[in-house]
Amino acid sequence: MSELTARLREGLPADAVLTDPDVTLSYARDMADFCASGTPAAVVLPGSVEEVQHVMRTATALRVPVVPQGARTGLSGAANAGDGCIVLSLLRMNRILEINPVDRTAVVEPGVVNAVLTRAVNEHGLHYPPDPSSWEECTIGGNIGTAAGGLCCVKYGVTAEYVLGLDVVLADGRLMSTGRSTAKGVAGYDMTRLFVGSEGSLGVVVRAVLALRPRPPRQLALAAEFPSAAAAGDAVCRIMESGHVPSLMELMDRTTLRAVNALTRMGLPESTEALLLVAFDTHDPAADLAAVGELCGSAGASEVVPAETQAESEMLLQARRSVHYALEALPGTTMIDDVCVPRSKLAEMLEGTAAISEKYGLTIGVCAHAGDGNTHPTVCFDPDDEDETRRAYEAFDAIMALGLDLGGTITGEHGVGVLKKEWLARELGPVGLEMQRGVKQLFDPLGLLNPGKLF
Amino acid sequence: MSELTARLREGLPADAVLTDPDVTLSYARDMADFCASGTPAAVVLPGSVEEVQHVMRTATALRVPVVPQGARTGLSGAANAGDGCIVLSLLRMNRILEINPVDRTAVVEPGVVNAVLTRAVNEHGLHYPPDPSSWEECTIGGNIGTAAGGLCCVKYGVTAEYVLGLDVVLADGRLMSTGRSTAKGVAGYDMTRLFVGSEGSLGVVVRAVLALRPRPPRQLALAAEFPSAAAAGDAVCRIMESGHVPSLMELMDRTTLRAVNALTRMGLPESTEALLLVAFDTHDPAADLAAVGELCGSAGASEVVPAETQAESEMLLQARRSVHYALEALPGTTMIDDVCVPRSKLAEMLEGTAAISEKYGLTIGVCAHAGDGNTHPTVCFDPDDEDETRRAYEAFDAIMALGLDLGGTITGEHGVGVLKKEWLARELGPVGLEMQRGVKQLFDPLGLLNPGKLF
Repeated sequence: MSELTARLREGLPADAVLTDPDVTLSYARDMADFCASGTPAAVVLPGSVEEVQHVMRTATALRVPVVPQGARTGLSGAANAGDGCIVLSLLRMNRILEINPVDRTAVVEPGVVNAVLTRAVNEHGLHYPPDPSSWEECTIGGNIGTAAGGLCCVKYGVTAEYVLGLDVVLADGRLMSTGRSTAKGVAGYDMTRLFVGSEGSLGVVVRAVLALRPRPPRQLALAAEFPSAAAAGDAVCRIMESGHVPSLMELMDRTTLRAVNALTRMGLPESTEALLLVAFDTHDPAADLAAVGELCGSAGASEVVPAETQAESEMLLQARRSVHYALEALPGTTMIDDVCVPRSKLAEMLEGTAAISEKYGLTIGVCAHAGDGNTHPTVCFDPDDEDETRRAYEAFDAIMALGLDLGGTITGEHGVGVLKKEWLARELGPVGLEMQRGVKQLFDPLGLLNPGKLF
Repeated sequence: MSELTARLREGLPADAVLTDPDVTLSYARDMADFCASGTPAAVVLPGSVEEVQHVMRTATALRVPVVPQGARTGLSGAANAGDGCIVLSLLRMNRILEINPVDRTAVVEPGVVNAVLTRAVNEHGLHYPPDPSSWEECTIGGNIGTAAGGLCCVKYGVTAEYVLGLDVVLADGRLMSTGRSTAKGVAGYDMTRLFVGSEGSLGVVVRAVLALRPRPPRQLALAAEFPSAAAAGDAVCRIMESGHVPSLMELMDRTTLRAVNALTRMGLPESTEALLLVAFDTHDPAADLAAVGELCGSAGASEVVPAETQAESEMLLQARRSVHYALEALPGTTMIDDVCVPRSKLAEMLEGTAAISEKYGLTIGVCAHAGDGNTHPTVCFDPDDEDETRRAYEAFDAIMALGLDLGGTITGEHGVGVLKKEWLARELGPVGLEMQRGVKQLFDPLGLLNPGKLF
């Protein structure tokens, strides 16, 4: 037994320290297959704050890197192991500690699965909006680490907007509380938001106070078919400019629709270039959908089909939720991008992506959280074909460059991880990068927390 | 002419550097009269980013402290001058650079007055929710510096939730951009939120990208009279627990009502112990008010009066907006507190404050953003009476201690400034304080930006 294993076992139950390589290797990476990963020295599964503190103290004492992990559903390699690291899985800390309907807050451990929390608060008439596509698997801790988005963001915002306070174990094992349990609070710098989206590189979140909302009415959706992605982008602009507040506004292109049909046999229209889904959870969604349907028509939609029942609506949303799995199931490999542009630039972004697809001779399927201007171009390629692989990486880079040119960001919701760390410097600029590195240095002077990510 | 003045004038127009003590003294403090302030060496009024950079480079070269200032409507002394400092007033940088109805964003300079922005975006059918009571005077830069709240927060949140991106001049004069112009974005650490509420101690905000919303329907209010503040607090709990989403929920106690009547002759009911105002901007506010009226009744309201017209509604809100001025107009001095507790603890906070008032033999008027659990107990005392002044400070401290005991924060929206810096350490704890000081050290290694505030 190595010294590391022995020391870890001093403060953890025997079954919470895994070292069998066959087992530990299954913790090596998230869902971004194409990102590099290493072989962990150990995987630990602490069940309490004290056990997490023991892991961090041990790691600091022995100078061993630590990679915090949730359900590994991330898409940027942010939770990938490095060689010889400790993988710190938070999956056992999965208790919902409190749900308070008066304060509209929940207090949770990081390993709670998003859908489990959602259902639990639903029983109190409450709602936790952030809903990444992986919501049945992903954890709140992982959502916080990556500042996850989802389908609800166009109306309800991202994870960051629901995190009021955190308990964080720092690199040296000390416990720090940030933020508050109250609706408002401005005592000192906002350290909570510094941790949201920090990809486990500043500390280990062990407890979160989350804001909840009253449960909204169920949403009703329509589907509109467009002759081009740009026309769909134009419809998005008209809808937002008219003051509508949809609860969902999603776009799927022809490649995406075909992939979803192939996986699910849903029978989505494959003759259209772009399908726009719009939903409302207002008091009269049918009226809102009728108004939006007209705007879609004036933007050139060839067909507008409002769902007439909740079941039809749910089927449309299910189609959107299955996009990632459908594209993954295509032959070859896929590399999913996550460029977010101002929504007024969405049409330009979609046209530019089509031009990149043509230039590099590659299929690039596009789905988008259209209401947020957040596109997910997915580059499809054969990893055994060296030239195609090279072109895929070039196309991937060209998409990010286009996004930055349009005043956007390289990542709307998936995070930087290992996938985009070379691009982060370009987005932040030298001063921004220097200050971000300063923050990292402040919280993790030994560079032990998730090294090699972000920067 | 001092070297400082000479160097400042090298990069600023002559009328942008003020050194006449009669003039500079008028920039010495904000609205918290009881907070210490000093005599500035100079007041500068830059008109551009470059001029702000020149000021900061000069200050760094000569090691002169800089106090950034908006309209000085703050209530914690955060913008108070220190002896020999440069007061950096952003009032001349008051341009609205862009309003984009598709992206629902505005780009502004820091000196734009809140109400000016609100009216400008209204013309595009848009809304900028944060509405501090001082909204006709206070600036967006000041709102960002203090993370200002207002009456809208119970539904729409605080300033922080509307700041997407910032341009900031750092202590050494370098320009840094944070955040984004997009609806979503997670590229690196969230530095934007670090600056929101940092009270000018980390950098000088020179440009902000703000999120806007569609303009909501006009709100309709009711007033409910309660036999005790605790009963009103109980009503707040019932309303929130029932899933209502009021656009405003404010409480005024008898002392406050009398003060407002004395100032405005509005004829508010003085026989009641607590008046609760609740408003809705939903599609059917009258129905929502009716439901809330019943909940108030079941919590013990002696009278529930729904406004029947917009004008009546507006009068009620105007009464609430005038509270600060009304309490200021009372004989003697007032010291306004800003404790925020979980709203489920509001009744306990109000009862505890009444007990503190009795214990110290002082009038303590209370108004509260009741829906947020954010109370503003206002301690009234005669500053010429030494014993009363001592008791006033002790009562002020006892209120903060009570707030912390109830799981609250020492400041819901006014900030720490000089008023509460000794209490900040108590709220943050040693580890939190150490890391916050580390952030300050990172951005302002020479300690030139608004020294003596926060810590």
